[in-house]
Amino acid sequence: MNKYDHGGNIYSIKADPPGKILDFSANTSPLGVPSGVLDAVRREAPGFGIYPDPLCGKLREALGKHYRCDPERIVCGNGAADLIYRIVRYARPRQALVAAPSFSEYEKALEAERAEIIFYPLAGPCFLGDRRILSFISAKTDMVFLCNPNNPTGILWDRRLMESVIDKCADTGTIAVIDECFNGFLDDPAGNSVQGFLDRAPGLVILNAFTKVYGMAGFRLGYMLCGSGETSRGIAGTGQPWSVSAVAQTAGIAALKESSYITELRRLVKAERFFMKAALADLGLEVLGGEANYIFFRLGGDSGFEKPGFSVSLLSRGFLLRNCANYPGLDDSYYRICLRKHEENESLIQALQALRDGGGDGKEQQYNAPAGLPRGGIG
Amino acid sequence: MNKYDHGGNIYSIKADPPGKILDFSANTSPLGVPSGVLDAVRREAPGFGIYPDPLCGKLREALGKHYRCDPERIVCGNGAADLIYRIVRYARPRQALVAAPSFSEYEKALEAERAEIIFYPLAGPCFLGDRRILSFISAKTDMVFLCNPNNPTGILWDRRLMESVIDKCADTGTIAVIDECFNGFLDDPAGNSVQGFLDRAPGLVILNAFTKVYGMAGFRLGYMLCGSGETSRGIAGTGQPWSVSAVAQTAGIAALKESSYITELRRLVKAERFFMKAALADLGLEVLGGEANYIFFRLGGDSGFEKPGFSVSLLSRGFLLRNCANYPGLDDSYYRICLRKHEENESLIQALQALRDGGGDGKEQQYNAPAGLPRGGIG
Repeated sequence: MNKYDHGGNIYSIKADPPGKILDFSANTSPLGVPSGVLDAVRREAPGFGIYPDPLCGKLREALGKHYRCDPERIVCGNGAADLIYRIVRYARPRQALVAAPSFSEYEKALEAERAEIIFYPLAGPCFLGDRRILSFISAKTDMVFLCNPNNPTGILWDRRLMESVIDKCADTGTIAVIDECFNGFLDDPAGNSVQGFLDRAPGLVILNAFTKVYGMAGFRLGYMLCGSGETSRGIAGTGQPWSVSAVAQTAGIAALKESSYITELRRLVKAERFFMKAALADLGLEVLGGEANYIFFRLGGDSGFEKPGFSVSLLSRGFLLRNCANYPGLDDSYYRICLRKHEENESLIQALQALRDGGGDGKEQQYNAPAGLPRGGIG
Repeated sequence: MNKYDHGGNIYSIKADPPGKILDFSANTSPLGVPSGVLDAVRREAPGFGIYPDPLCGKLREALGKHYRCDPERIVCGNGAADLIYRIVRYARPRQALVAAPSFSEYEKALEAERAEIIFYPLAGPCFLGDRRILSFISAKTDMVFLCNPNNPTGILWDRRLMESVIDKCADTGTIAVIDECFNGFLDDPAGNSVQGFLDRAPGLVILNAFTKVYGMAGFRLGYMLCGSGETSRGIAGTGQPWSVSAVAQTAGIAALKESSYITELRRLVKAERFFMKAALADLGLEVLGGEANYIFFRLGGDSGFEKPGFSVSLLSRGFLLRNCANYPGLDDSYYRICLRKHEENESLIQALQALRDGGGDGKEQQYNAPAGLPRGGIG
């Protein structure tokens, strides 16, 4: 596995039969593209012949209403990843701090700008953030990237600690990029967002995207809410003018109207999070975190699972998991899986049970759900 | 007008009534999005929830067949503009040569990389390329950007001169980026492409896009054919992994099947090019170039048109033209218009005639088409 390989790359998998892989490696919404987005894209498709609005005026206006944020402080991009590269390109940091383990594109974008990268190692077996991080931030720190909840660990940053980080960054003149791409999957999104700090921290930038929460990874649409209009304008002026397609702008505006999709999503994710954590633990796997739509776990010493061949065995049964060996600080005993629909989650649990018991292809095995948890058919 | 403002930004126009502007400022296909592309995007839309293939495998395979080029030497991007930035970022040139006037994103991308930009001034009143350009290329020249046919002038480079440029670049170790985004509108696309030189010039890169020829500007899809796989892989590895949306990949594959669209496009563009050049000249405007789907002209001293207010007067009549004042070497007497459908082109000619004659809003004026040219109704 390459240092910067990601989950979700089902295209590199040679599946037999092809297309029969259940992808648990990408953390996107189990509900797929919202129907209102499909309708809007199909309806507006003939209009995609002309250049997109380079300023994303209507989309930024819609986001501004959604977040009660001045559209002047919002910038849109070709997915969150595009904005990570653009803010680094714009800010040209000499030194930057990233937590480890975390999303690898921060590191890759900083390397491309030849910034010195300081790693703050998350603490203990569950990789929690703690107050040591404050000592890593100084006047030499030009940028900090933090993901909340963190990817791949699924752990939330303590709100008061996050506030201290933002205040420290304001003192040291550090740009703090808080990646909230998974915030929308939380039980309490507002209570775990740092949006309330935007007015007092001009260097604060919140990264978000339609990718995960709205199941729109293939459209490529991300955005940033910035503490200052200078930052949003600077990022918007970095790189090509038409980074956000007209398709993505149309899709994003339609997605923001999908409130019942979000209600259904949170209900599903909450139930499946509960089900899967218990089921994985029941199988002897060490569940380390998972407050959003994905669960981070480890193959413990006495779980009965063998590290070598774990991914390959599951892939042969039709399940693609995210091995986390290429994250700094992790090894091939760490895995991340997303939450899918109930019957799909249950089929993974059955496959895991079959694998542990050394049984056939998983279909002959019977998985017994922990008492009190819902049972669904096998998809 | 800002140094880097482009045509096609109808979003910044305050039209009254809104939406009633005919945009002659962006050079995209007058036929709009091909029907096969609309069908494919509408059909495949539910699949756009998952991450796009970062390697654009199927699209590159389709492009490889279309161009009879090894897919390993093809790289796709989020529009041609994305690829301009990425190749500059990848190559990190210290010194680069661009023709003037030409497409401004070359210059902007080079400035972002802090490259020294040398301008080769195109020659004479029609801004032709000549052999002087060879003396501008030396071992210090890391990159050359040339657009063929050139934008905004619409002039083709002489094929033997282009060959000399490519050979000189091979000698000096210079990356030569030849932008052929308008090649597909020519009467002889193959005869004017430098694709035949790819095998003997590892530093040659041909830039193209679906944007213009297939009327797909809003989808964002460009590509490069590279003289070496090292270059294509290097560009692909620069920036975020998922720059090309799943929508664009689906749309591009569908577009390549649209051979009757291309036949119809070439027929229309050839007829309208002939009609509009004659009609503009008949109005006393100096037609300087236009071998693709756009015409470059100048408000001559005795044309009866006033430079100040020309754009604004036409906009008030519902026509957006591309004033070329922000191109190096040009001033506000230079304009570029794209070719649209016949009735739309004719309505622009009528508005120009009304403007020259100082008449009302153009609708009361009768435009007399030059003898032998087709007449159409007013759209």
